[in-house]
Amino acid sequence: MKDFISSIIATHNQPLQTQIQAHLDDLIKPPGSLGRLEEIAMRYCHCRGSAKAAIKRMQLFTFAGDHGITQEKITPYPSEVTPQMVMGMAAGHAAVSVMCRAAGIDYTVVDVGVANKGFPEMQGLLQRKVAAGTRNFAHGAAMTAEECARAVKIGFDLVSGSNADLIGVGEMGIGNSASASALYSLLLDCDPEITVGPGTGSAGSLLEKKKRVIADAVRMHRAAWDRSPADALCRVGGFEIAAMAGAMFGGGAKRVPVVVDGFIAGAAALVAMRIEPRVRDYLYFAHASAETFHAGFLQAEGIRPLLALDMRLGEGTGSALAMQIIRQAMECYHKMATFSSAGISKSI
Amino acid sequence: MKDFISSIIATHNQPLQTQIQAHLDDLIKPPGSLGRLEEIAMRYCHCRGSAKAAIKRMQLFTFAGDHGITQEKITPYPSEVTPQMVMGMAAGHAAVSVMCRAAGIDYTVVDVGVANKGFPEMQGLLQRKVAAGTRNFAHGAAMTAEECARAVKIGFDLVSGSNADLIGVGEMGIGNSASASALYSLLLDCDPEITVGPGTGSAGSLLEKKKRVIADAVRMHRAAWDRSPADALCRVGGFEIAAMAGAMFGGGAKRVPVVVDGFIAGAAALVAMRIEPRVRDYLYFAHASAETFHAGFLQAEGIRPLLALDMRLGEGTGSALAMQIIRQAMECYHKMATFSSAGISKSI
Repeated sequence: MKDFISSIIATHNQPLQTQIQAHLDDLIKPPGSLGRLEEIAMRYCHCRGSAKAAIKRMQLFTFAGDHGITQEKITPYPSEVTPQMVMGMAAGHAAVSVMCRAAGIDYTVVDVGVANKGFPEMQGLLQRKVAAGTRNFAHGAAMTAEECARAVKIGFDLVSGSNADLIGVGEMGIGNSASASALYSLLLDCDPEITVGPGTGSAGSLLEKKKRVIADAVRMHRAAWDRSPADALCRVGGFEIAAMAGAMFGGGAKRVPVVVDGFIAGAAALVAMRIEPRVRDYLYFAHASAETFHAGFLQAEGIRPLLALDMRLGEGTGSALAMQIIRQAMECYHKMATFSSAGISKSI
Repeated sequence: MKDFISSIIATHNQPLQTQIQAHLDDLIKPPGSLGRLEEIAMRYCHCRGSAKAAIKRMQLFTFAGDHGITQEKITPYPSEVTPQMVMGMAAGHAAVSVMCRAAGIDYTVVDVGVANKGFPEMQGLLQRKVAAGTRNFAHGAAMTAEECARAVKIGFDLVSGSNADLIGVGEMGIGNSASASALYSLLLDCDPEITVGPGTGSAGSLLEKKKRVIADAVRMHRAAWDRSPADALCRVGGFEIAAMAGAMFGGGAKRVPVVVDGFIAGAAALVAMRIEPRVRDYLYFAHASAETFHAGFLQAEGIRPLLALDMRLGEGTGSALAMQIIRQAMECYHKMATFSSAGISKSI
């Protein structure tokens, strides 16, 4: 993965920052009164390397993959739901596709590892299957290093090849909250008792079983783990999580900010940031998910997401909403009058 | 005002609520996973009295008025900024107008009490001036009961006459954070030391003076106040605050939800809710403003706003962003596939 990473450019640039701030302070409003919209605009221009950067095209990718861990029967939905939802996403009937259409965001669902033999050709669906689901990480590594790198490269190439100037990522995959929890446990050294939550709706004895299965798996992998984030990803991750991490590297390499959805996408961001901390400069964290440990992750990393709407659907739904907010921040940045042009009293 | 109020219809309707919930649970997602978007859709349909209610047209009104209290020199901007900003709003160069344009929200700025002799005719600007600014509430009532009722009626009539099915309100008026703080102090029986904040940017000795002036004024009005919310509004309110309260009554009467912006609009909502508590069912609170006491008000009333982006600009900027979120909730509600139609496994 080192070749992806070395391409990431540090964004620290004091003269540019001063230039962006001067423009923000010239907009006809009390200084700082647009709050986090100003922080969003600062980050956007900084990432793109220009005080004149604008959003012309937004694109959201939902990466889909299945998980061998579902063999342990720890999810309320069967793996068959993954391909059904992928079809619904491509057809425009899933929440994320509905939202993207309404928000003017180009939308693509990408099969990186759904457990089927492939899909019929459909507009809005890219077939990049690495394998038909991961292996069951209760008994061994979910992916080989080679499979994992292929999934990362898919995400990286899609973002590198996109002409969008704002990218959103999300995911679909029955079982992937288990995978994300295991990743958080390994990388943040947290007990699965804390990191495992209901996901799409495990409750009661099902949730207890989910916690037990993941605790056992994490114990097993921790014993053999080489302590690298990439190895953690191979051991307990998933194809869609790897692809999202790759998309974030692609954003860093191309200097295009990437909007990270919720709990599962957050695990991908954690992997990416542990591999290359500078990738964080290119990320917007869309929302605080209702999934139990998401708040714990955000707090541990000092991240304040843009929205908090108790959503826990995934797909990229949080990203889609946050992209509208980011877009509005950039609209204000470019289209508001300035004190210097409007001749309005700046203060007494 | 009683004639406005009696027209408000209670929304409590258990069979309708059950019908809306059944549709929400039939959408292809785990139950409740859209979080507050589901609560938004429930409120929207409930307000409109139909499980099939949809948003076809959104409209935002910025009510503008000036404040005699600025004679006390407690604001960093002079009153001359109000008409300048009104022109900028109508011309499409203010933050709120930029946001509305990008979000497909019809936008109108309404002069209900700007301290000038009137504006040239401009598209997007309605001239409904009650008076050229309120009187200085440091020395007496800001408005007569008749003036106040006229301002309320302007807001009421605009919403009643609109064919929009989602209304947003916001305000512009140098000095109106002082007015809002005084209203919060009277109606929530809070010390101005707590309710007065920087507004557009009073700091240091200017903020101390603002607190002192409002504390003195609140003490004076509290002694003579008849304890009715309408009298509080006349004493320390403003034309734009009265008009926003009227717009909320109009929403209730017409069963169209109204999106309440930030700190100043919140004071209008407090007045409206104290006059008629049922109006609350028709309100969405857009965001938690960065203005100091807004959090105190929201907490006192048990209100959880939709967004928290540290904004403190007013104008309706928070409403515009929240209206996009509400719109997306209704898009999902209407355009997502349902389990019953799609034949997707609901659970194991």
